[in-house]
Amino acid sequence: MVAPQKFTEFIEANADRFIDRLGEAIAIPSISGDASRRGDVVKMAHWLEAQLNKYGVKTEKVPLGTQQLEGKTLDLPPAILGRIGDDPKKKTILIYGHFDVQPANKSDGWDTEPFTMHYDKASGKIMGRGSTDDKGPILGWLNVLDAHSTLGLDLPVNLRFCFEGMEESGSEGLDDLIASEAAKKDGWFAGVDAVCISDNYWLNTRTPCLTYGLRGIAYYQIIISGPGSDLHSGIYGGAVYEPMTALIALMGKLVTQDGHILIPGVYDGIATADANELKKYEELDYSIDDLEGAAGGKIANSSERITVLMGRMRNPSLSLHGIEGAFSGVGCKTVIPAHVAGKFSLRLVPPQTPDDITKKVIAYVESEFAKLNTRLNMKVEYMHGGKPWVADIEHWNFEAAKKATEAVYLQTPNYTREGGSIPVTLPFADNLGVNVLLLPMGRADDGAHSTNEKLDVSNFINGSKLLGTYLYEVAEITQTA
Amino acid sequence: MVAPQKFTEFIEANADRFIDRLGEAIAIPSISGDASRRGDVVKMAHWLEAQLNKYGVKTEKVPLGTQQLEGKTLDLPPAILGRIGDDPKKKTILIYGHFDVQPANKSDGWDTEPFTMHYDKASGKIMGRGSTDDKGPILGWLNVLDAHSTLGLDLPVNLRFCFEGMEESGSEGLDDLIASEAAKKDGWFAGVDAVCISDNYWLNTRTPCLTYGLRGIAYYQIIISGPGSDLHSGIYGGAVYEPMTALIALMGKLVTQDGHILIPGVYDGIATADANELKKYEELDYSIDDLEGAAGGKIANSSERITVLMGRMRNPSLSLHGIEGAFSGVGCKTVIPAHVAGKFSLRLVPPQTPDDITKKVIAYVESEFAKLNTRLNMKVEYMHGGKPWVADIEHWNFEAAKKATEAVYLQTPNYTREGGSIPVTLPFADNLGVNVLLLPMGRADDGAHSTNEKLDVSNFINGSKLLGTYLYEVAEITQTA
Ligand SMILES: [Zn+2]
Ligand SMILES: [Zn+2]
Ligand SMILES: [Zn+2]
Ligand SMILES: [Zn+2]
Repeated sequence: MVAPQKFTEFIEANADRFIDRLGEAIAIPSISGDASRRGDVVKMAHWLEAQLNKYGVKTEKVPLGTQQLEGKTLDLPPAILGRIGDDPKKKTILIYGHFDVQPANKSDGWDTEPFTMHYDKASGKIMGRGSTDDKGPILGWLNVLDAHSTLGLDLPVNLRFCFEGMEESGSEGLDDLIASEAAKKDGWFAGVDAVCISDNYWLNTRTPCLTYGLRGIAYYQIIISGPGSDLHSGIYGGAVYEPMTALIALMGKLVTQDGHILIPGVYDGIATADANELKKYEELDYSIDDLEGAAGGKIANSSERITVLMGRMRNPSLSLHGIEGAFSGVGCKTVIPAHVAGKFSLRLVPPQTPDDITKKVIAYVESEFAKLNTRLNMKVEYMHGGKPWVADIEHWNFEAAKKATEAVYLQTPNYTREGGSIPVTLPFADNLGVNVLLLPMGRADDGAHSTNEKLDVSNFINGSKLLGTYLYEVAEITQTA
Repeated sequence: MVAPQKFTEFIEANADRFIDRLGEAIAIPSISGDASRRGDVVKMAHWLEAQLNKYGVKTEKVPLGTQQLEGKTLDLPPAILGRIGDDPKKKTILIYGHFDVQPANKSDGWDTEPFTMHYDKASGKIMGRGSTDDKGPILGWLNVLDAHSTLGLDLPVNLRFCFEGMEESGSEGLDDLIASEAAKKDGWFAGVDAVCISDNYWLNTRTPCLTYGLRGIAYYQIIISGPGSDLHSGIYGGAVYEPMTALIALMGKLVTQDGHILIPGVYDGIATADANELKKYEELDYSIDDLEGAAGGKIANSSERITVLMGRMRNPSLSLHGIEGAFSGVGCKTVIPAHVAGKFSLRLVPPQTPDDITKKVIAYVESEFAKLNTRLNMKVEYMHGGKPWVADIEHWNFEAAKKATEAVYLQTPNYTREGGSIPVTLPFADNLGVNVLLLPMGRADDGAHSTNEKLDVSNFINGSKLLGTYLYEVAEITQTA
């Protein structure tokens, strides 16, 4: 069973109407990080709920409590939970998306008003804040529901929805909601067989992606103190131990120029890539030129494409971010800073965890500091972190997405792991214990958090077909299995 | 010949009047760095010129051109040049001082109005902006002139004066003035035998000082670039060379924890301290406790007092000041900064010069950067600098100051070298080719550029006696020599 031709034809035929609907969604400036826009986030929740209801989805707006923002106590925007289909013979797929957006002002450098959709037919670009992150993908699901409802087609799977309005502001309240719903015997997530999240991007502008891994993170600061206040380097230079000298020495002992992390034990238990995994990198449609083009400089740390890709996707890394408390301005200041905090973070891969890495970081930095033999004070602080995640790409959830991609795009998808984090992935994987698929709609150059955010109309329309087709492929594979 | 008893008695007897006059000077907020106060700097110049004229000093207000400040073109405040005495049998001493002050607002944390003198009889403190830096010392000279004029006494030497109103703003215009006057056969500085500058401080709160050396400075930045813009460490960490990693490595190769500079050749030609010089440090009334008390922490880099003193006064040092372009805020930011500039400076001692040290710094940093073997770009920039200075303390100018100190304070002075710079010293020494003496009036805790700036009344009155007595000792020594 593949997706019925009339489904894909409907999507194609209704493209203009779908683009207009995306324009309606973009026009609601649902900026979760701006207290004065909280009403618009709630308005966006109502708009979305009404759309879902129109196509037969039962919904509940779940209050998530309050937050402190800009000195005010604000109600968090509600999450929207939804369900459609209860056929015990069908698989149940949980869909996640977020209806809040990043801030945007025309004066930031946008070519057009960010909250007025601008569809340029010549280039095929749908511009506007939220077009690709994450209103486009959410509306992709609405298009699928719309098609089935209008055409009187049964959905091939049962669907559950979890849409939130706080993703761009740390997904406040969502972890608790997922945990409590997952724990309920008859909750909204009961019977969910797999999860599908469309909230990331292709690796390039050409090739559809399935994303199966995310690195975790562990963020630290090394704080060094000694003097009572900043000292004048003319008066004290040469007579005292200087916090910056010690901090620079410690920061210099964390990682080599080519990215090898020097903290003992940090690589413990990380599997070397097997032939199967190496093949995935070999097959990736992504060159060193792509990477350097996106980075804006010829700075790849290897001339081996696979090495660079694995450095980005599946190996841990350590970056030095900066120093708090030192002179950071333009020009010259002859200060000996009294109290400096060096910031660095590691990107983690399985089986690394922030807890385990923190023990190793603290032990190492403390022993290196002792070797410096100064009379200064040093403290290493773990600031925040998150575990890494890798999904099984042999699972039917990924197989279905692969087949759907091949059917819609006539291309084998790139299998990618993301270097950064998509924080909701882990709570779903951990609490539901099911396979999670990241199925991006947009391209690498969409500019998700940037000016002139866009979604290509072909990604929107083909992406809508892809989401629907994926559901049919899920039904097909799991029926025959 | 020592100072006549009636001179010192006059100073003592007129203390209240002198304090009131200091109050008049403090009341003129002659802040050279504030465009809106430029009129007050000029007013202060007029006030000072009138005082000098009253005691028979011939003066000229010399225009110094214009400057750009806060977007306006402003006339620089005039310098005041003065002369009194033309006896070819007498030595001619050039006096320098500055009549401008640092900014000050009560809201900065002052206990009293900064531009209203507050004389607390109980503690003996004369509080107010400029009390010690540098109006107190200038008024010390007025007190000497006042005494001689009122008592009908001849001055024991010929005096020349150079007072400026831009010291706190880089002494703009002064270098050119000194150079051009020094070049004139019959200029204001013709026949000057030695210079006396009162614009620094005792090393502690107990012991008068003669200062005979200043370290120079050479300030650098190491700029590293590569990416086109800041990168996300999740996406690029592990795949690219990172500017911060390279910068931290280079900054870590400049100096050891105990202050040894690692740049090859940097110590070339610096004399080791001979017995005579070592004795000067041994005799200094300054302990490691004094240093650590002032620094606000137990951070001296040696338990040997002499080592610490020499580290501060006569050896070169290197301090790391900070990094421009990296994350420098509170909290966490997972950025790979694209363009970072690490700032550091060396304090120089003879025979080091900024030119020579710059060659060595650039050669060393470039060779260390090449060893890192990255694909990033690096540039070392010399930002500014100044030569070090050391005076001959066997010269009659210092001998006279020593005898005067013993006569007034009944103490042998500390011979100090300052770690920082007093920029006017070098132009006088270089252009006039004569001995320059730094003869401080105030104490280490006066808070020159800080809140609650003060001058102890005993330092003001004894300091005025000291300045006059010094002139008599000059006459005495040079007559018998
Ligand atoms: Zn998103
Ligand atoms: Zn986003
Ligand atoms: Zn001064
Ligand atoms: Zn000053």
